[in-house]
Amino acid sequence: MTDNNVVYVGSKPVMNYVLAVVKEFNNGASEVILKARGKAISRAVDAAEVSRNRFLTETKINGITIGTEKMQSENGPSNVSIIEIVIGK
Amino acid sequence: MTDNNVVYVGSKPVMNYVLAVVKEFNNGASEVILKARGKAISRAVDAAEVSRNRFLTETKINGITIGTEKMQSENGPSNVSIIEIVIGK
Repeated sequence: MTDNNVVYVGSKPVMNYVLAVVKEFNNGASEVILKARGKAISRAVDAAEVSRNRFLTETKINGITIGTEKMQSENGPSNVSIIEIVIGK
Repeated sequence: MTDNNVVYVGSKPVMNYVLAVVKEFNNGASEVILKARGKAISRAVDAAEVSRNRFLTETKINGITIGTEKMQSENGPSNVSIIEIVIGK
C-alpha cells in the first residue's frame, strides 16, 4: 500500500514493504515515509533496514518519530503506539 | 534489566520496562536509553510512550536510532533489527 510517498506497514511479509519503498524511489520520490502501528512497528524497522542495506545504499534515515494514537477496539478505546521512519536520498 | 542508564526491552510486560525507566530517572539519571531488537522493538516504543505520557511528562525523546545486528540462530547467522530510544529530561 503506497500513497503520496507513504508506505503503510501491516502484517504482510517484510519484502512487500521493501519493494514498495524501492518502487517509490524509482518513481522519482526523494523521500519515502514508512508508517506502522502496534506490533507492525518492528516490521517497519525491518523494512527500513533491508531497504537501506540491500537495495538503496545511497539513502539514509532522515528522521524517526514515535507517538500514540487512540484506537477503537472491541473493549472500548485504547492507545496504540505508532512510528514514522523517513528515508531520504 | 537496567545497566548504566540502559533498559533492555525483551518479552516481559510493557509495564516492567516503564517501571525500570521511571526508576532510572528517580535514581538521578538525566537520560535513559531503551534498547530492543527484533519483535521487542514494538514493545520498546510502547514503553517509551507510556513512560512519557503517563509517568514522566517532563521528559522528551532526545533521539531514536535503528540499525542491524548479526545474530547466531539455529539456521546459521541472520540479521536482526535493533532500536535505541533516548529519553531525556
